Order: sequence, then structure tokens, then C-alpha cells
Amino acid sequence: MRASRRSEVDPFIVMDVMEAARQAEASGRSIIHMEVGQPGTPAPAGARAAVVGALESDPLGYTVALGLPALRQRIATLYKDWYGLDLNPDRVIVTPGSSGAFLLAFTALFEAGDRVGLGEPGYPSYRQILKALSLQPVGLPTSLENRLQPVPEDVPADLAGLIVASPANPSGTMLSTVALSGLIGRAAEIGAAFVSDEIYHGIQYEGRAVSALEISDDVCVINSFSKYFSMTGWRVGWMVVPEAEIRRYERLAQNMFICPPHVSQVAALAAMDCDVELQANLDVYTENRRLMLDGLPRAGFDRIAPPDGAFYVYADVSDLTRDSLAFSREILAEAGVAVTPGLDFDPKRGKGTLRFSYARATADIAEGLERLRVFMNRR
Amino acid sequence: MRASRRSEVDPFIVMDVMEAARQAEASGRSIIHMEVGQPGTPAPAGARAAVVGALESDPLGYTVALGLPALRQRIATLYKDWYGLDLNPDRVIVTPGSSGAFLLAFTALFEAGDRVGLGEPGYPSYRQILKALSLQPVGLPTSLENRLQPVPEDVPADLAGLIVASPANPSGTMLSTVALSGLIGRAAEIGAAFVSDEIYHGIQYEGRAVSALEISDDVCVINSFSKYFSMTGWRVGWMVVPEAEIRRYERLAQNMFICPPHVSQVAALAAMDCDVELQANLDVYTENRRLMLDGLPRAGFDRIAPPDGAFYVYADVSDLTRDSLAFSREILAEAGVAVTPGLDFDPKRGKGTLRFSYARATADIAEGLERLRVFMNRR
Repeated sequence: MRASRRSEVDPFIVMDVMEAARQAEASGRSIIHMEVGQPGTPAPAGARAAVVGALESDPLGYTVALGLPALRQRIATLYKDWYGLDLNPDRVIVTPGSSGAFLLAFTALFEAGDRVGLGEPGYPSYRQILKALSLQPVGLPTSLENRLQPVPEDVPADLAGLIVASPANPSGTMLSTVALSGLIGRAAEIGAAFVSDEIYHGIQYEGRAVSALEISDDVCVINSFSKYFSMTGWRVGWMVVPEAEIRRYERLAQNMFICPPHVSQVAALAAMDCDVELQANLDVYTENRRLMLDGLPRAGFDRIAPPDGAFYVYADVSDLTRDSLAFSREILAEAGVAVTPGLDFDPKRGKGTLRFSYARATADIAEGLERLRVFMNRR
Repeated sequence: MRASRRSEVDPFIVMDVMEAARQAEASGRSIIHMEVGQPGTPAPAGARAAVVGALESDPLGYTVALGLPALRQRIATLYKDWYGLDLNPDRVIVTPGSSGAFLLAFTALFEAGDRVGLGEPGYPSYRQILKALSLQPVGLPTSLENRLQPVPEDVPADLAGLIVASPANPSGTMLSTVALSGLIGRAAEIGAAFVSDEIYHGIQYEGRAVSALEISDDVCVINSFSKYFSMTGWRVGWMVVPEAEIRRYERLAQNMFICPPHVSQVAALAAMDCDVELQANLDVYTENRRLMLDGLPRAGFDRIAPPDGAFYVYADVSDLTRDSLAFSREILAEAGVAVTPGLDFDPKRGKGTLRFSYARATADIAEGLERLRVFMNRR
């Protein structure tokens, strides 16, 4: 069978760790999961109840490609509630997860061969989706003094696009209004499209995350119901695009996806009114983060990025190892804690970093930190 | 904002008709829907019950990228039941609808610039997805004597791939084992990948649809839960790929989709055991088809392709009009029946064709045919 070069994307190295963790659990060991990038909680109860209702009253066939009008309208009001913005609901496009939004955005914006910049460390799939679409990912190394985020001076003039995330994965760091404005300005200056990944908005601890839409309408904003709304497996997200581009996205979405999953749109609409439960989830992350910021340094992981949002801590462990994959295997085997080596997020410097997730229950986080402390003391 | 040339895909012309039908209904008119490409029935009751159960017992987070192992296993047994094939379940990849499968297949198989052949008339999104992925769709005109399907002599040697559908949309025609073998052989001869769209399998009236997997393992087969299993809006489908390519698809799927919607996979697994309800749906299509094959010629639409499967009749109306879009508007306005002009399926000859769908309730089909007869008598 024929095979394309563009499909030769990198494997996820974390899968190795997850498979080893699965085997350890299958053999009866207790493993604490600090490698996972998703909440342990289900969709909010109100969302699940809405699904049960819809199953009885609606055949749940195709929706229009851009999503249920009521959902697009409700998302628009979120921009009022969270950022004080009046957003035209026509600019909201519901997508099959933020994954679908990235496919749609990159296709709409870039020609085969175009160079697209992304900060390193960063979400690994940006790079792989770009490759699969015959685009050239251009990694922009970042520094701890810039909160592991790119700065305008780092952005070469030949880029067709720039992808930025705040709060970021794996670091949890956020961009201030000034920092975000600088990057949007630099993109405009070189004629590059600006793609803002805002999928961790709502999960924030020090001040609030700034949306690129507060600064410019000429940006492509991507968000998701996966994290704050605790709906990873439902595969529903959204994007906000400039008014002039709506029809372009609509035609692409009709052909590439037909529509986002109908049942997930029903769940998402109801989830947006489940404030009490979502706040309770956030309270758990807040307590978990407090434990992490106390426990990780005590265990010896003290070179960490400021985790303003999301549910990750990214640690520089280059003083402890020159091989983060081997180190994460050792931590799994010796401490019974699964963590993610940094290689997926930063192909160059990730051999000296680890990502710790604190998305699960607080008792697990406390136990994991204690295991890490004992392990590091013994080492 | 930047915009790519490859995103300049064609609009769906049928959307025009659907919007006009919606407006007519909003103003109080009764409209019979023969334009829609989906069952009017919901997912089977057993599938919906499984969802209700899962909502209580499972957080429904991410699944592995290739889909729930139990679902992949169950799909493999379908190949035993339907075709007598022993299929390795590892070769089954669950996807976000067949749309996701096409994105995955085209990315895995083809390099930017590659030429990919498809029969005309055919499903319009093949062409648009190819364009969006920087590939070149090559339309292969077909003839009624070849059942509106391409034949080996029509396939130019410079193609990197060939897409075939049986039963086909819009025609409902099927390929015999001999015809399908000829096309697979021609693709192998020129080194082209063979993609077999089998999403209407199970909905068949004259003999059974042949799978490309009965002829060769070196093909990419795409199927879906949308049609036979009546789950369009759930966005879940699958593909079967050669053993040597599984890892390639897995890495792409991890990055492009993370996973198919978890809740839809739960529903799909249960749907596969809902034989009684699915057979009842099929009985409705069978009766509807009988009415169509009787009523359409009586109304004056007598130049039709043999609808072996699916739930469409494709009619040559070039003796009645030179503008199928205007004609479909006239039918909607005068007869209150929404039908699809052929232009979406065949940019060249579609101005002289219409597609009639019979996926809805039998009473609607009978009423629609009567309205068409009265309209054509008056015309």
C-alpha cells in the first residue's frame, strides 16, 4: 500500500509510560496517575441529564455544520461573562473537539509548504497536525524568564502563522495582556495568521486568562469543552473566526466533518449552566495545585514554571537526569507514580524536563507527592 | 486575515434547496423531504439504553485513539457475518464518522499535489476534502451502461489513488465482484491506493454489496454507523487498513482526533446487536423503494439508474430541464417536495439530473410521489 511522507508523524512518547502504567496496574500494583491530561470527573450532572432527555425526544441526526444555533449563542454569551466582550454568535463555530478546530483552522489559513511557528515546549499535536497537512512546524525555543512563552523577537518574519497557548500545556503559564498584544502585533506585522489556543481558559489561579479576542478581532481563537467543562471524551470544542471568514469555515466544515457530534452539543449546551459543579471541580484543582507547589519542591523538584492555569506543573530536572524518559520509567517502577517526560512537548530540551498533572482527586495527588518524596529521598 | 487557496471549496448547492424548504415550512407549508441523506429514525433503542447506562457508570473520558477494543472486535465479527471474512480486529480503526476516516486515509496515503480519481456522479465531499488537503481530485465520467460506476479503462495511469463507492451516492448502484476486482486490479497496476467507500453496506435490495476486502487486503475500506445503523449525528465510523499500516494510522489519529466520541462508540457497540430494529428500518426502505420505482416513472421520471442499495434514486431529467437547480426550486415551490439537483454530485452533467431520497417514513414517500405526479401532469 502507498504511504505518504506527511503521515510520518512522531509517536507520543507518553504512550510508552501509559502502557507501562497499565501493565503495572494489571499486575496488581497501585499507580498514581500524574501523566494524564484530563479531569477524572465526568461531564456535569446537568449535561448528562440533558443527554438522557434528548435521547427520548430527538432523533439526534446531523446538525448544521457550524453547530446548534442555541449552543453558538450560548458560547457567545460566555465571552460577555468571562471577558466583557459582545461577540456576534455567527462568529462561533462548534467543532469536533479542539482537534477538529485545529484541522479546520490550519486548512483554512495555510497553503501546503507554509511555515507555522509554535512555542517549545508546547502541545505536541500542533506539530504533528501541521505535518500531516503538508505544513512546516517551526519550533520557537522559549525561556523561563519569559514564562516558557514565545516573545515577539523570537518570531521570524517568514512565518505564515503563529500558534500560542495561554494557559499553556505543559507549563500552565499564562500570557499577560501586554505579552499577548506583543505577539498579536508581531504576527500582524509579518502578515502571519494568529491562532490562540485557549482550551484551558476557566482553569486559572492567579488572575484570569486573557483572550486574544480582547485585543483583536483578526485572530482565530480555539477553545474546547474538554477541560473546564470536564468533557474530554465528548469531542466538542469551538472556534471564533473573523466575520469575513465565516462562510469559508462553514464550507470546509460541511465537507470535512458534516457536523460535530449532536449528542455532545446537547451535553455542552447544558454543561454551560452547571456553575456549581464546575466551581467544585475548580476548587479541587486549586487545592491540588497548592499541594503540588508545596510537595514538589519538598521532594526535590524545585525548578518549576509558574503554573498560572491548567492542571500541570512543568519541571526542569536536567540537574537530576539527562534522559527524562528513563527517569519517568524509574519513577514509575520505584515510586509507583506515572509522570510524563518532556520529550513530547520539546523535542530538543525535553530530555531534561517532566510534566506532572494534578487533574485527578486530591487524595491521589497527596499520595503521589508522598511517594515522590520518599523515592527522591532514597535516590 | 490570511486565507488559503486550498480552503476555497465549493458550496453545497443542496443547502440552497434545504434553506428554501425550511423557509417554506416556517411559513406554514407542508414539505415532503426527498432531499435529505439520512434516516428519519433515531439510533436503535438498545444503543440509546447503552448510553443511559454508560452515563451513570463511566466518566466517558478519552478512549485510545483507535477506538474501544470491544467495538473493534465487534466490527471484525461483522465481516464474518456479512462477508464470511476472518478479519484481524487490530486492522479496524474507529473514526469520527466516515468523514474522519476520509481525512485520515487521504492524509496517510497521499502527498500534496497527488492526483486522486473519483467517479462522477459521486459524493461531493470526496472532492472538497481532497482539495482542502492540497490534493487534486480527478473526476472520472461514468455511463449508465456501467451503472454510473467507473471502469478500469477510465482510470488514467497517473493517479495516486482511486475512490470507489458501492452502493453509490447519489445513484444507489452497486459494483459486482467482477467490476470491483477490475478496478482494484487497475489501481494495483498503476500503483494507486484503492479506497472503498462502503458506508451504505447493509442497505441493499438486489443481492448483497461486495466488500473490497473480499478481493484484496491491500485496500483501505471505509464504513460508518450513520446509515444502516441509523446514527448520522453520532459521528462514528470505521476503516479497515492493511496490517503493515496500522501504526501509521494510529499515530495520525492520536494527533488529528485524539479519539472518536466516547459516547458514540458506546452507542455503536450496542447498535450492532439491534438486529430486529435495524431490519424493521430496512423493511421501510424496501417498501419505499418499491413505491419509488413504481411512482417516479408514473410521474414522468423514467430515466433512472438501478438503485441496488442505499436510499436514493438518481434520475436523468435532461429531457425535462437544462437547469436542475431551477427545476428543483420549481418542484419545491409548485409540488411542495424538496429534491436535490445533481450539480453537487456531478459538476459537469448534474445540471440535467436530480436525486430523490427515500430515507423517511413510507407515508411521506407515498404523499411525495403523488405530489410529483400531479405536478408533472400539470406542467
